[in-house]
Amino acid sequence: MSMQVVQSIVDARSVCRLQKCQGNNVGLVPTMGFLHEGHMSLVRRARSDNDFLVVSIFVNPTQFSPSEDFGTYPRNFEQDRRLLVDEGVDLIFCPSTEEMYCSGSSTFIEVTGQLTANLCAVSRPHFFRGVASVVAKLFNIINPHRAYFGRKDAQQLAVIKRMVQDLNFDIEIVPVPIVRDFDGLAKSSRNAYLNPDQRKSSTVLFRALQHAEMLIIDGERNSSRILAEMERMIQATEYTRIDYTNIVCASSFEPQGYINSEVLIAAAVWVASTRLIDNIQIDPDNLTP
Amino acid sequence: MSMQVVQSIVDARSVCRLQKCQGNNVGLVPTMGFLHEGHMSLVRRARSDNDFLVVSIFVNPTQFSPSEDFGTYPRNFEQDRRLLVDEGVDLIFCPSTEEMYCSGSSTFIEVTGQLTANLCAVSRPHFFRGVASVVAKLFNIINPHRAYFGRKDAQQLAVIKRMVQDLNFDIEIVPVPIVRDFDGLAKSSRNAYLNPDQRKSSTVLFRALQHAEMLIIDGERNSSRILAEMERMIQATEYTRIDYTNIVCASSFEPQGYINSEVLIAAAVWVASTRLIDNIQIDPDNLTP
Repeated sequence: MSMQVVQSIVDARSVCRLQKCQGNNVGLVPTMGFLHEGHMSLVRRARSDNDFLVVSIFVNPTQFSPSEDFGTYPRNFEQDRRLLVDEGVDLIFCPSTEEMYCSGSSTFIEVTGQLTANLCAVSRPHFFRGVASVVAKLFNIINPHRAYFGRKDAQQLAVIKRMVQDLNFDIEIVPVPIVRDFDGLAKSSRNAYLNPDQRKSSTVLFRALQHAEMLIIDGERNSSRILAEMERMIQATEYTRIDYTNIVCASSFEPQGYINSEVLIAAAVWVASTRLIDNIQIDPDNLTP
Repeated sequence: MSMQVVQSIVDARSVCRLQKCQGNNVGLVPTMGFLHEGHMSLVRRARSDNDFLVVSIFVNPTQFSPSEDFGTYPRNFEQDRRLLVDEGVDLIFCPSTEEMYCSGSSTFIEVTGQLTANLCAVSRPHFFRGVASVVAKLFNIINPHRAYFGRKDAQQLAVIKRMVQDLNFDIEIVPVPIVRDFDGLAKSSRNAYLNPDQRKSSTVLFRALQHAEMLIIDGERNSSRILAEMERMIQATEYTRIDYTNIVCASSFEPQGYINSEVLIAAAVWVASTRLIDNIQIDPDNLTP
């Protein structure tokens, strides 16, 4: 069967409803397009798990603040389409902004509490409500059995899992590991913004996380000392400005002064005018040096 | 087939999923129990529209403020069960609070803007987010084709319709007319709080709305003058204290100083310690005196 491309909500809904009626499992990979190897690993995992695979491409305005890069966010539909055909995707859902947000649209989903008290929620206060709301819309349109999210956006993944549980969506959320470039930089559509010098500087983000891991392997458990070393490394690198570094509980996202259970070490760093995020998850009781 | 009663989300979901798989239409009437003729008109309408009828009974704590009547809200499951058996309901879903709100639950749906800027949203600031969130949960658990809401809660109905449209729920919202007692008092579970004297006073709410309608039929279009007469009537009645009276656009809920299109005239009045609401919808271009 050849890949379908639909822009309308009604069409996407009816295609997916037919598949479910025929007893097929439907998988969804929500994306903002400009696909890279990180997305493709979600697509391949979803392809192998499901009978019918939907990839949505929608640059969602409500998760950008006015000062952010909604207008310049990279887009290349024709390239995305070719990549998805090659992976055997069944349906691309690529609605317009007007199709997704009708006039008077005013409903938002807020995940409150510890999950959205730190990390990206501080410098991007409306980001997670924009993400949660658009993902709920996609869930209601596609009605998938499973949906796939990358671990690079660890806080987003936690917010979506919380929303699915709290609002009783009947959907399995499948986390997929971070895909990195040859030098460790996590794949991101925003890497396209970096010039060669900035691209070199950007590797400090993952190197700082690796250094933190090494300190923990060496026995360090004090978060402040680890974060201080990470920040020192990042600050010593040209073009960088730290948004945050933090060590939080991997499930509750509560900041941890002392590491005695599984933690997420997360950082957001501006490299010139490009904001990059990355993270690693570490269980001090199960270290693999 | 005899009526089923289930407390667990997993059971409710699987019963309803089976019905949908068999090609049956599923209707949902969400209630807080202590059923009266208002509820029963929803149930009868839903019974005639659908193959499989679910009534939920759940007194939702998140839509009550700490100072409100969650603890004393009237409950009588056995009476409700008998009433619903008699109407041929297929499934009662009556979860516990713990079943609906697992530990750490922290997701809320907010309908923002004009719809929640006035009327009940002022004195009950968290009410609509509690309602929207629990209704979304019920929608995701039952996954009905249609859901039924009474027009007495006109603002609630508008909020739910907005949420369904904005979040792309694939559910038809069916509004059902207000059911009134012999003397015009709108049926409400909270009427049970009224002693005989208070019960007599409570009729002023609908009489004030009828008086407003009569003024409009007589040609009055100035909202302030109509509201002043309504308030005068209510204030002249023993035990009463006005929460609000207002005249708003029937679709946008924007307050209307002058009546030149369909309006909702709405009031909330305390009768002793019982808060009652009522409304009428009037189209000045289509008056039926």
